[in-house]
Amino acid sequence: MMGRRLMAEALGTAFLLAIVVGSGIMGEQLAGGNNGIALLANSLATGAGLFVLIVLFGPVSGAHFNPAVSLVAALRGELSRAHLMFYIAAQLGGAVIGVWIAHAMFGLDLLQASVRTRTGTAQWSAEFVATFGLILTIVGAGRAKESSLTLVAAMVGLYITAAYWFTASTSFANPAVTIARALTNTFSGIRPVDIPGFIAAQCAGALAGALAAKAIFQKSA
Amino acid sequence: MMGRRLMAEALGTAFLLAIVVGSGIMGEQLAGGNNGIALLANSLATGAGLFVLIVLFGPVSGAHFNPAVSLVAALRGELSRAHLMFYIAAQLGGAVIGVWIAHAMFGLDLLQASVRTRTGTAQWSAEFVATFGLILTIVGAGRAKESSLTLVAAMVGLYITAAYWFTASTSFANPAVTIARALTNTFSGIRPVDIPGFIAAQCAGALAGALAAKAIFQKSA
Amino acid sequence: MMGRRLMAEALGTAFLLAIVVGSGIMGEQLAGGNNGIALLANSLATGAGLFVLIVLFGPVSGAHFNPAVSLVAALRGELSRAHLMFYIAAQLGGAVIGVWIAHAMFGLDLLQASVRTRTGTAQWSAEFVATFGLILTIVGAGRAKESSLTLVAAMVGLYITAAYWFTASTSFANPAVTIARALTNTFSGIRPVDIPGFIAAQCAGALAGALAAKAIFQKSA
Amino acid sequence: MMGRRLMAEALGTAFLLAIVVGSGIMGEQLAGGNNGIALLANSLATGAGLFVLIVLFGPVSGAHFNPAVSLVAALRGELSRAHLMFYIAAQLGGAVIGVWIAHAMFGLDLLQASVRTRTGTAQWSAEFVATFGLILTIVGAGRAKESSLTLVAAMVGLYITAAYWFTASTSFANPAVTIARALTNTFSGIRPVDIPGFIAAQCAGALAGALAAKAIFQKSA
Repeated sequence: MMGRRLMAEALGTAFLLAIVVGSGIMGEQLAGGNNGIALLANSLATGAGLFVLIVLFGPVSGAHFNPAVSLVAALRGELSRAHLMFYIAAQLGGAVIGVWIAHAMFGLDLLQASVRTRTGTAQWSAEFVATFGLILTIVGAGRAKESSLTLVAAMVGLYITAAYWFTASTSFANPAVTIARALTNTFSGIRPVDIPGFIAAQCAGALAGALAAKAIFQKSA
Repeated sequence: MMGRRLMAEALGTAFLLAIVVGSGIMGEQLAGGNNGIALLANSLATGAGLFVLIVLFGPVSGAHFNPAVSLVAALRGELSRAHLMFYIAAQLGGAVIGVWIAHAMFGLDLLQASVRTRTGTAQWSAEFVATFGLILTIVGAGRAKESSLTLVAAMVGLYITAAYWFTASTSFANPAVTIARALTNTFSGIRPVDIPGFIAAQCAGALAGALAAKAIFQKSA
Repeated sequence: MMGRRLMAEALGTAFLLAIVVGSGIMGEQLAGGNNGIALLANSLATGAGLFVLIVLFGPVSGAHFNPAVSLVAALRGELSRAHLMFYIAAQLGGAVIGVWIAHAMFGLDLLQASVRTRTGTAQWSAEFVATFGLILTIVGAGRAKESSLTLVAAMVGLYITAAYWFTASTSFANPAVTIARALTNTFSGIRPVDIPGFIAAQCAGALAGALAAKAIFQKSA
Repeated sequence: MMGRRLMAEALGTAFLLAIVVGSGIMGEQLAGGNNGIALLANSLATGAGLFVLIVLFGPVSGAHFNPAVSLVAALRGELSRAHLMFYIAAQLGGAVIGVWIAHAMFGLDLLQASVRTRTGTAQWSAEFVATFGLILTIVGAGRAKESSLTLVAAMVGLYITAAYWFTASTSFANPAVTIARALTNTFSGIRPVDIPGFIAAQCAGALAGALAAKAIFQKSA
């Protein structure tokens, strides 16, 4: 039972990273130097892919694919704390494998490290806002008047497509994604040294988002 | 109770402006001078974001995020006139904060004023049409045969994505958005002096839209 | 009763043309000479707008906005033949007004005639295929296992977005749209002299589509 | 009965190829040399078109349009093995006709052969992943908590839109599509000599996807 859930988290997160990194590589290769076109491709592919992955794996594992989401689920009593570490391990393992799959598909070296700088107050505040909004979306969607797994999947996919554009960091909003993206020196990469700042901002945003969701949505269930 | 509704209006409008202004900044930065690519990003992000925000906050406050929508709701007896002023205040406050959040995320000065000219008969007629269509969409969606909050959210999001392109003004269609966008000297800005013309056109369009909706949809409820 | 239906057809077709022509103008103005970007905007705005218009006006008039669709409806006994002429007149009137609204919003001369050549076997076969597919979509959607107005609207909107790209003519697929687009010398125009060829191809495609739909979908209702 | 099913498979696959090849031609013609814009058009048109085709033809034939999907359906006992060959023949015939329709609409020679190289381990691994994910999506969507034909159609359309970008091969994921695309020397073509490698990778990916789906989704029905 738990094995199937962890397999779903790992496979789903692997696909998520293959989509994020792979569409970033393809976008950059085809866009002729215009990063606006590359990010359009990257954001549409990620949003579309997330919808599919959440509908597929939601009934099995909850389709978190994100340690920050699992953490909030544990705090809200929806995921046992004993299982939290297993979830995070499956997400991290899947995420790294997903990056390698993207590299294999594009004929690149499997093992890479990004040299792309993503640091500073602006980037961190962007990650705070991105993760705050993601948690607000997930918790709120689960309590929406017409809630369904399909609706949650649509909202998360559309939120992330928008957040690629409205946050200055292109909305990582996910510690497992952040760590795995340090392992690709392509469009979507981030320097390993910049990981801690991103993850700290994401965790702070996630907790603030959970509190805001509790304040705003508690009575509309 | 009222506090939670106003918090929802303020937070939702703040996110809306962060999305509109933030995706405009990102679009302009990445599009290499091609405003078509920037507006594609801007319009897709805004439409996607609106869907999410309306589903999230609809059950709490009605998810107006727009004084013209609140005004029509009050005229139609769906919002008490005593609450109208509070709604508009929450929307204005949220909108301004949303612009500042966008500036913070992109490392820009928080306090700005736009120098972008948006005036004249063509622009005003565009705002009239944009707001006419928005009110027609909202009222009609609420009376649609298969009406649901999800459907209303999809229709508003898709309407605005289209309206960015088919109206010459890129469809502000919202007095709070108009005022807040005067406070950013980026892609989505508008000169403060051009605010009154836009708001007048929006109010006229909203009232005409409400009348047209009444004439066309009254018996199909 | 009939007045309200005709008003819905006229207003819906006016909005459709304002969207098609307006987003074409905006796309061309912003795309910096790259017609691919202009057609992306044009096709996404039209598809999104069609979804909204069909959900809005479907319960009132059936949301045809298209003489070829009304003709097929009459042949299938879903629209009285006495009403067919009124529908077509409302669609034509609305379409022309919609073009003028687009011109007004962009500060262009209201009265124009297109000089853009769209003729020849390839273009006509494209219009045949485009209208064949549109009728197949509409009739089939109405008989789909999970049919609903929302589903029909989504299918027509997505079909047209795709058909802008896969047909060489960008899929007019609508005699009223064809005539009205002769009255704009902008991105979406067509020479008046090219109208008859387009309309003939559209009518042939519509009839073939209705026959194909009858053969394929008759027993799956 | 069987005739109607085969007609649906043939017509649906013809439309699919007309969409894939036609939107590729249009994209390349309009994109001014920027293949990123061409692939945006190609991927959005294909995803939108697939949604429409699956909703239309799903109740008639299952809307496979793909020998790999039919093969998996036969292995899962959802398609009689006697019918499998007929399905594949209808798909192949429809696919070739669809390419010719695209050529006719764009005024190109009907009979062409592609000279575009698509071979090597990276491309094959991309096709393996693409088809693995497609089968996982289809089987999983059919077992999803809120499964419906509309949901399956949305998931397949969105999956393929994403897969155009995240797989290095732009995700053919379909032996009939692969063979037919060898018959067009345009944007979406593939050299005839490269067909066997693609089909082998697709079949391997399909079988692996079916096994993975069985392992992950078997108990969540």
